[in-house]
Amino acid sequence: MLPPLIVLDSIIKNWLQEDIGRRDSTTQGLLLFDSKGKAEWVVKEDGVIAGLPIAARVFQLLDEQIIFTSMVEEGEFCQSGKKIATIEGKKEALLMGERVALNLGMRLSGIATETKKYVDKIADLPTQFVDTRKTTPGLRVLEKYGTQVGGGVNHRLGLDDAVMIKDNHIQAAGGITQAIALIRSNIPYTLSIEVETSNLEEVKEGLENKADIIMLDNMSLEMMTQAVEIIRQQDQRVKIEASGNITLERIRAVAETGVDYISSSAPITRSCWLDLSMRMVE
Amino acid sequence: MLPPLIVLDSIIKNWLQEDIGRRDSTTQGLLLFDSKGKAEWVVKEDGVIAGLPIAARVFQLLDEQIIFTSMVEEGEFCQSGKKIATIEGKKEALLMGERVALNLGMRLSGIATETKKYVDKIADLPTQFVDTRKTTPGLRVLEKYGTQVGGGVNHRLGLDDAVMIKDNHIQAAGGITQAIALIRSNIPYTLSIEVETSNLEEVKEGLENKADIIMLDNMSLEMMTQAVEIIRQQDQRVKIEASGNITLERIRAVAETGVDYISSSAPITRSCWLDLSMRMVE
Amino acid sequence: MLPPLIVLDSIIKNWLQEDIGRRDSTTQGLLLFDSKGKAEWVVKEDGVIAGLPIAARVFQLLDEQIIFTSMVEEGEFCQSGKKIATIEGKKEALLMGERVALNLGMRLSGIATETKKYVDKIADLPTQFVDTRKTTPGLRVLEKYGTQVGGGVNHRLGLDDAVMIKDNHIQAAGGITQAIALIRSNIPYTLSIEVETSNLEEVKEGLENKADIIMLDNMSLEMMTQAVEIIRQQDQRVKIEASGNITLERIRAVAETGVDYISSSAPITRSCWLDLSMRMVE
Amino acid sequence: MLPPLIVLDSIIKNWLQEDIGRRDSTTQGLLLFDSKGKAEWVVKEDGVIAGLPIAARVFQLLDEQIIFTSMVEEGEFCQSGKKIATIEGKKEALLMGERVALNLGMRLSGIATETKKYVDKIADLPTQFVDTRKTTPGLRVLEKYGTQVGGGVNHRLGLDDAVMIKDNHIQAAGGITQAIALIRSNIPYTLSIEVETSNLEEVKEGLENKADIIMLDNMSLEMMTQAVEIIRQQDQRVKIEASGNITLERIRAVAETGVDYISSSAPITRSCWLDLSMRMVE
Amino acid sequence: MLPPLIVLDSIIKNWLQEDIGRRDSTTQGLLLFDSKGKAEWVVKEDGVIAGLPIAARVFQLLDEQIIFTSMVEEGEFCQSGKKIATIEGKKEALLMGERVALNLGMRLSGIATETKKYVDKIADLPTQFVDTRKTTPGLRVLEKYGTQVGGGVNHRLGLDDAVMIKDNHIQAAGGITQAIALIRSNIPYTLSIEVETSNLEEVKEGLENKADIIMLDNMSLEMMTQAVEIIRQQDQRVKIEASGNITLERIRAVAETGVDYISSSAPITRSCWLDLSMRMVE
Amino acid sequence: MLPPLIVLDSIIKNWLQEDIGRRDSTTQGLLLFDSKGKAEWVVKEDGVIAGLPIAARVFQLLDEQIIFTSMVEEGEFCQSGKKIATIEGKKEALLMGERVALNLGMRLSGIATETKKYVDKIADLPTQFVDTRKTTPGLRVLEKYGTQVGGGVNHRLGLDDAVMIKDNHIQAAGGITQAIALIRSNIPYTLSIEVETSNLEEVKEGLENKADIIMLDNMSLEMMTQAVEIIRQQDQRVKIEASGNITLERIRAVAETGVDYISSSAPITRSCWLDLSMRMVE
Repeated sequence: MLPPLIVLDSIIKNWLQEDIGRRDSTTQGLLLFDSKGKAEWVVKEDGVIAGLPIAARVFQLLDEQIIFTSMVEEGEFCQSGKKIATIEGKKEALLMGERVALNLGMRLSGIATETKKYVDKIADLPTQFVDTRKTTPGLRVLEKYGTQVGGGVNHRLGLDDAVMIKDNHIQAAGGITQAIALIRSNIPYTLSIEVETSNLEEVKEGLENKADIIMLDNMSLEMMTQAVEIIRQQDQRVKIEASGNITLERIRAVAETGVDYISSSAPITRSCWLDLSMRMVE
Repeated sequence: MLPPLIVLDSIIKNWLQEDIGRRDSTTQGLLLFDSKGKAEWVVKEDGVIAGLPIAARVFQLLDEQIIFTSMVEEGEFCQSGKKIATIEGKKEALLMGERVALNLGMRLSGIATETKKYVDKIADLPTQFVDTRKTTPGLRVLEKYGTQVGGGVNHRLGLDDAVMIKDNHIQAAGGITQAIALIRSNIPYTLSIEVETSNLEEVKEGLENKADIIMLDNMSLEMMTQAVEIIRQQDQRVKIEASGNITLERIRAVAETGVDYISSSAPITRSCWLDLSMRMVE
Repeated sequence: MLPPLIVLDSIIKNWLQEDIGRRDSTTQGLLLFDSKGKAEWVVKEDGVIAGLPIAARVFQLLDEQIIFTSMVEEGEFCQSGKKIATIEGKKEALLMGERVALNLGMRLSGIATETKKYVDKIADLPTQFVDTRKTTPGLRVLEKYGTQVGGGVNHRLGLDDAVMIKDNHIQAAGGITQAIALIRSNIPYTLSIEVETSNLEEVKEGLENKADIIMLDNMSLEMMTQAVEIIRQQDQRVKIEASGNITLERIRAVAETGVDYISSSAPITRSCWLDLSMRMVE
Repeated sequence: MLPPLIVLDSIIKNWLQEDIGRRDSTTQGLLLFDSKGKAEWVVKEDGVIAGLPIAARVFQLLDEQIIFTSMVEEGEFCQSGKKIATIEGKKEALLMGERVALNLGMRLSGIATETKKYVDKIADLPTQFVDTRKTTPGLRVLEKYGTQVGGGVNHRLGLDDAVMIKDNHIQAAGGITQAIALIRSNIPYTLSIEVETSNLEEVKEGLENKADIIMLDNMSLEMMTQAVEIIRQQDQRVKIEASGNITLERIRAVAETGVDYISSSAPITRSCWLDLSMRMVE
Repeated sequence: MLPPLIVLDSIIKNWLQEDIGRRDSTTQGLLLFDSKGKAEWVVKEDGVIAGLPIAARVFQLLDEQIIFTSMVEEGEFCQSGKKIATIEGKKEALLMGERVALNLGMRLSGIATETKKYVDKIADLPTQFVDTRKTTPGLRVLEKYGTQVGGGVNHRLGLDDAVMIKDNHIQAAGGITQAIALIRSNIPYTLSIEVETSNLEEVKEGLENKADIIMLDNMSLEMMTQAVEIIRQQDQRVKIEASGNITLERIRAVAETGVDYISSSAPITRSCWLDLSMRMVE
Repeated sequence: MLPPLIVLDSIIKNWLQEDIGRRDSTTQGLLLFDSKGKAEWVVKEDGVIAGLPIAARVFQLLDEQIIFTSMVEEGEFCQSGKKIATIEGKKEALLMGERVALNLGMRLSGIATETKKYVDKIADLPTQFVDTRKTTPGLRVLEKYGTQVGGGVNHRLGLDDAVMIKDNHIQAAGGITQAIALIRSNIPYTLSIEVETSNLEEVKEGLENKADIIMLDNMSLEMMTQAVEIIRQQDQRVKIEASGNITLERIRAVAETGVDYISSSAPITRSCWLDLSMRMVE
């Protein structure tokens, strides 16, 4: 889910102004005026495409008459060489917006492509793959959109839409019980409270204090299995999230412990951009 | 080279507001008020550290009394486990700024680490390694700072500080000669003009039209060698840049053709974040 | 809970710029330069004080040397005539910031005062009083802070930190079941889902679809009692919120049906500002 | 008089971004795409309607194709149950903009409704009812527009469009004479100077120093009558404003003293929002 | 009168960001870090100095430790070669802020110098010299501050702090009487209404409709004399402004007609910058 | 070359908001609603017209239906009395935008007119006339556009698009050699490096260190001639710029020394605005 345009447009304008600075000396120097042209986007390596609606908006903010035609669905896996979009409109807008639009599309497609690898490993299980708050500064909602396009589910978007009590918070409050009590009395009652646990004692303490989500952090498969059992005996609604040391090799085993969610930053912090290019066509 | 604070601060504020949104329900819910604390940053895998001055500023914008002490130099190669910084000040600021500061530091350190691999391959040759305009939207000057920390040199920062005439521009103008003439008559005379060439005819045309920089794009090693020879016979000042298909395996051979610069987006588009973590101490 | 200064300051600056426009012709016309003075704030009618920390910040943004001393606690009930704060610093800052600071303090104290009347009616019951999204545009987090100061609890802060499925959404989706399913598959898993119900069928449908919060909207006391019973038989964790037609007369009876939360916009939409004034002393 | 759109739009965007935050998880979660719908606004209690043009703009900023049709005039007194507007366009925009538009309309209609009560008391007299600078931070020009819709007249909009010399300024300058002289020599000659007086000596001093407006602050009816007489004997152009302790009961007697203007913050600080609601139709 | 810093700072930041762009490659390239230095400002031609407080602020926004010492008063007439200020602090801030600070100081000093020539011509007469709304976009309040420093008085600051009814407005409304009536019923009662007149009929019509200011636009000296007589017979408070074709040669004769104010844009639109320079000292 | 609209629009909006403030009390007070009108722009003294495309945009941002028809080319020399544009659309937009649009047009036309005088003096020589960084804060790119319209060429746009090493930098670094070496190692390789020289020793030092541009600052004609000779013997590509004491009388002699560029701030700092006016027609 992307932000609505009233939120998204100002982000895209910032990007364009970052690249353009005072002006595009090359493109504007050509004095193209209103001459029209057509461009194609082609994917140069196999992967999942994400970000075409944002790319379209980049061009439209430079020339509202631009027609951007996606030739694939968001989330479609494409093979190298496939034409994924055409863009028609003022050549000046095509050339001026090219880099910003491609950079975004390549970054998001890279995330979606990597996410899909994790998601595919557990596709037949009820467990879902989620992202984290390790995202490039300034790109939070967009990189998390990339997670969704790749088949993943989002964790919280920021510090204000869910509570996540980590070891540093627990230590500052003097314990899980105290931390949950304090925070619960100060926040909107509609917010979920998640607590990070590293052993079974902490799991039980989170459970007793009615945390909405219990995160099993860096536990062994055995401990996770026990934790799930302890939690499910008492409560069917508490959500269980596994985190830490999640790899493509290990994710299936973690899912089989019965946790609801497995979170990892890897598709965002350890993925390559998917190579896309734009060429002018006659 | 980082932007001065009068430019940088507003970027950092945007990042903090992106993460915080309306407030940090977890940290502020603990009612820590002015209680002070100390945190350490530790690197969790081997790599080149970059971004500590920016991380320091992230915390200072939340609490101007914060003392951020770097324990390593920018660009220093550190082994996993090394303590790289300590931060002392209000616990609330430490916890609220942690994620933004770490995300930035991890991203830039990842870029610097990867850049250094390319730079090291040609360290004894006069050729320099440069970046491109393929950068994450919103992070242009910072990612390019990461390049510098890793030992690379920057290419242009945006569309207004140098002219780069690519195939799409050449096609729109009707040829290299026409494109250079048109653009030269419309831009500040202080701007350098670079022209992208893909064969020796184009190299000669760029040379005749007094381009300041000639880019050899996706040429074979043989053609690059010839191009360098043609250019150097006529002009000692024209700068020669090689681009396209630059890998760790191939970069040295490219440098040995005698080009001045080799550009690649790989350290920015195909690198992983370097794992850093923060822990409260005491 | 107020936003941190990095979020709050830009809001306060907007307020000051709204009032000052190009300059304060009266105060600046007096050429007071750095002459110092002292002012007092006095409450002119009985009520609960809220907003002093924000008032302090208003003055500090005009003169960082200003000393604002609160003489009462946030949330303290004061009788008319009580001195609640002193402010010392540049006279120019005192006079220029007076109106903005007072306007905010009067508005928030009015909300806190009215909220407390509702809260007091049910103080000995487990039910909590919550606000709504009916807030003055631009003042959302601050008016909700006023609710907290008056003893109430916040409902969601905006459209992104919890899901609230209302009749219009249900109608658009073709039913509660469809609406919950669609939304759940598109949002962060950490978000709570609240569904608005107006009869027992809808209550059951919400329950079956595992809504986190069920709102009983405009129901009779009898129907609410039944709804609570139905829900509690099945699930101890679902939160129950009553809404609609909540008055000081009726709130206690509603609470006695066993609902967890009672929401009303009245303290925000139907309260008067609490009269505060500032006078220069000495 | 509303600000032109070039001023108003950025205010409205701030409001929408305040409510939406990162996105509207409920509405956008329904994946309504371009599906169209129709909504009606109905007034739920008797009162004066104000703010429909601003409500229209709220929706248009979310979907420029929206058609907002006012069914009543701004300032029209409507009885509970009356349909006051219809809105047709994308369902997503209707649902996403609903709360911001209604909140503004309810607030302004509440102000207009209360203002009209004061205005009606003196409708057959030459005296006019004016507002003050006690307005909700961020809503100055809009709340003052509400005053106008209710039949009142605006006092100054901010600190830069008129001079108002209050007791604190007089004290700082060492007297009315000194204050007026100093300020007059430093401001645009086009600005009016108003001086606050609390006794007849001050009235005379203001008159001698050629204040453009003399405010009679918190005077008895007798003193006001005398003040008006003193002023009118000397000068027909000086404007006389009464202020302080203006109630619905007392306003007519104050007007009958012959003052030109009576100012009160009550319609803005002591009014309830007028209840409006929106329902989807068909 | 300058705007307070809360208004001024954001304007100055825009100027610095305009000049610096992404960074100051020359100064920052020198890696000066915290090395301190001292600079002097010298005036290179005779003139009135204006803008030193703003110049000081330019440097302080780059380095809050900077000490800017003015060696002359604002408005002092200085002869070529005079040292007017010293600045001590980080060399980087001195070099980076130099151009913006000088540009502003040169522009304002040029305005003040030219204004003083007009003011001196009528210094012994009661008539005052005022500016207009012909100011460089973005510099309104600062250029008008230059007028004040040169001894002139400001006309309105913008379209919202006074009403000026010009021929185009009169034509649109169908006459002076209609225009004044319409506007008066829609604006704050505290605003002055000025009407532009070009013959004695219009003067009388303005007078009858109780305009606060009557502008005699492009009239002959004879007609102005008659207009002043007509106005003064009826009303001592109406302010009379002469405008159009005001030159250094003619201004005294215009003042002798008895008008209160003479307005001209010449010191702002037809003046040269006063040459100032900065040099580093040991 | 103007910035693209995505950069330019926010500058123009700032200007309009500066002039309008909260609203245009005069124009809006007339309640013109959607009534349409037509206006003409006429030039009132002989000169070169510049800025019509920006004026058009000023009006379009107030009313997107406005039709602005230029009747002359940018850069055309017009005689007093010539009609240069017509504008058709809402009267309210015409009257509200008039002053901002005219102020900009008058300023830029004044610059273009003065620039052309310098350019004409050397039109038959290969030397080009360039501007400097002495521009009105906030108007950099627009005033430099005025230079281009007048036939001149732009020097760098800001501190980030070229390096200019001045005496202060040289002094701080300890010499030209050191300054160039330091800066070159820290900047994008695409940036040109210009060094300011005041004698032949410095010229030689700049040449040896491969500066891209050598500025001859305040040299005698004899020294300039020698400097050109020294440089051209060694290097055909280095660009030579003369600066300092450039007058209409002296510019041709300077050009005849063989320098490539002559820079002067005079057309920007020592020119008058060209008088333009707008009148409603019909």
